[in-house]
Amino acid sequence: MENRLTRLLGIRYPIIQAGMIWCSGWKLAAAVSNAGGLGLIGSGSMYPEVLQAQIEKCQKHTERPFGVNVPMLYPQIEDHLHIIAEAQVPVVFTSAGNPKKYTGWLQERGIKVVHVVSSLKFALKAQEAGVDAVVAEGFEAGGHNGRDETTSMVLLPQVAAALDIPVIGAGGFATGRHLTAALALGAEAIQVGSRFVATEESSAHPHFKDRVVGAREGDTILTLKELAPVRMMKNGFYDAVKTAYAHNASPEELKELLGRARAKKGMFEGDMEQGELEIGQVSSMIGTIKPAAAVVEEIWADHHRTCRNLSCSQTVGNSSK
Amino acid sequence: MENRLTRLLGIRYPIIQAGMIWCSGWKLAAAVSNAGGLGLIGSGSMYPEVLQAQIEKCQKHTERPFGVNVPMLYPQIEDHLHIIAEAQVPVVFTSAGNPKKYTGWLQERGIKVVHVVSSLKFALKAQEAGVDAVVAEGFEAGGHNGRDETTSMVLLPQVAAALDIPVIGAGGFATGRHLTAALALGAEAIQVGSRFVATEESSAHPHFKDRVVGAREGDTILTLKELAPVRMMKNGFYDAVKTAYAHNASPEELKELLGRARAKKGMFEGDMEQGELEIGQVSSMIGTIKPAAAVVEEIWADHHRTCRNLSCSQTVGNSSK
Repeated sequence: MENRLTRLLGIRYPIIQAGMIWCSGWKLAAAVSNAGGLGLIGSGSMYPEVLQAQIEKCQKHTERPFGVNVPMLYPQIEDHLHIIAEAQVPVVFTSAGNPKKYTGWLQERGIKVVHVVSSLKFALKAQEAGVDAVVAEGFEAGGHNGRDETTSMVLLPQVAAALDIPVIGAGGFATGRHLTAALALGAEAIQVGSRFVATEESSAHPHFKDRVVGAREGDTILTLKELAPVRMMKNGFYDAVKTAYAHNASPEELKELLGRARAKKGMFEGDMEQGELEIGQVSSMIGTIKPAAAVVEEIWADHHRTCRNLSCSQTVGNSSK
Repeated sequence: MENRLTRLLGIRYPIIQAGMIWCSGWKLAAAVSNAGGLGLIGSGSMYPEVLQAQIEKCQKHTERPFGVNVPMLYPQIEDHLHIIAEAQVPVVFTSAGNPKKYTGWLQERGIKVVHVVSSLKFALKAQEAGVDAVVAEGFEAGGHNGRDETTSMVLLPQVAAALDIPVIGAGGFATGRHLTAALALGAEAIQVGSRFVATEESSAHPHFKDRVVGAREGDTILTLKELAPVRMMKNGFYDAVKTAYAHNASPEELKELLGRARAKKGMFEGDMEQGELEIGQVSSMIGTIKPAAAVVEEIWADHHRTCRNLSCSQTVGNSSK
């Protein structure tokens, strides 16, 4: 299968692994790229020298294109961008910031730029800023999230219909059925996060992988909306957040409660109760830890089956009423 | 196109119009059924004698199957059910209550029973109670909603995979692309609400229809979670709710603020500021008021186009690597 997005990124399958803090280092990114998708290193949890080492290792372990996800609010973002440009990483996914700022600079260096948005308004701004593609990320996604709470079923078709550039669906996508649905809604690829957390190559702590595999519906919640809305697992830390809300806590008090390094404590160090565990709603559909390549292959095979079973020809036959 | 659900309900297209308080009387239901979908009378806003008259008019205006939506918390529910059974309405959609209570009674009278759920847990319970099909309704849906906040992209494929009986997707579905996506996710039909509010035959007040047509992303919100979560338009009433929350209002105070007949005031009487305006997120995709039959035909034609453009054959050809 080929479309504008697979050609743009030089990938075989329209499956992109989300760049996630603490979970997606070079091992995961290289495994996904080697399997024919696009792997992304999540740089938001890395010091510049760590990112540099991760990129080098990724380049050693795959000859295929991979990318780096860069949250634009990261304090040392310019260091990150220089490292990425010098290493000639072919793709950057930017999020949480103004795409006007660095898109031109990156593109002048031969780097494709994809920007993550949670609304049609920001999607149009990103297109105007000249990005090569956008990720439209719905309310069901894990981690940081938009304020409008628009779900993928509503956001994706609106963004895809309004934009001229290719659109990638994100938030709630983990299976081949999801890929078929996303393509039907106008996307040219899906970005998959939670499903890749529970892979052998993910750098998530084993306790976190097990927690994802054991997740049931209703286990995640979008909270801390007064700071930056984030979807995470309900646990001891979330109980503390609820108690703070019950006491009418101010944003400053919530910020103090969140503290520093709580995401690392949970996702990387394995504290399932006091850590912040960023994950999507779709974790309730994930039942096993497996190699990243198996995830890519299964999504692709499942998409085929789904697509064939839609039996459009039969539908077409019946339409001549 | 035929599947288990179109056969079960005796309909031509897998498109069901949601039974909505104040918006879906006999005119809308008959128009949708005449167009080949399934129309539903929303009985939640009707006294028994009103429902009886509505059913009679609907029967006069269509020979095709139609149904009645019955919220199970309705105080005079048994009067409603007797009227429905005596009038030999072929289908009842139940919601917001225990499906064990009336499913057998209705089925003994030759009536098909479809139950609306917002979680996999309740879907399994409904199947166990013997219902003929379930509606899996996501977080993006208008009106009353579940507590887990699970979106259609996550809820629908989980419910469809777990159940033996047919599943209908609801919440966020308004276009043919949505129908294709829902079928890919395992549904056998979609239930469409908001899109049918903005039709000529809907009994919504003209001001409300105009408000739906003018809706933009972020205009709806799921709120009043301490009472029963409801998705509605942001307006003057919602500002009052926000103020109440800022003052840490108790559930009793929220209930008093909501008062009685606020939904009627908004959706039926046209007070866009002080009324409660129940509508889905997908209202941001609705741009025109048109006949209900045109909505059905457009969804169907759009689904065809989408399905054909998915070009599964090309995909299949490439898969033999």
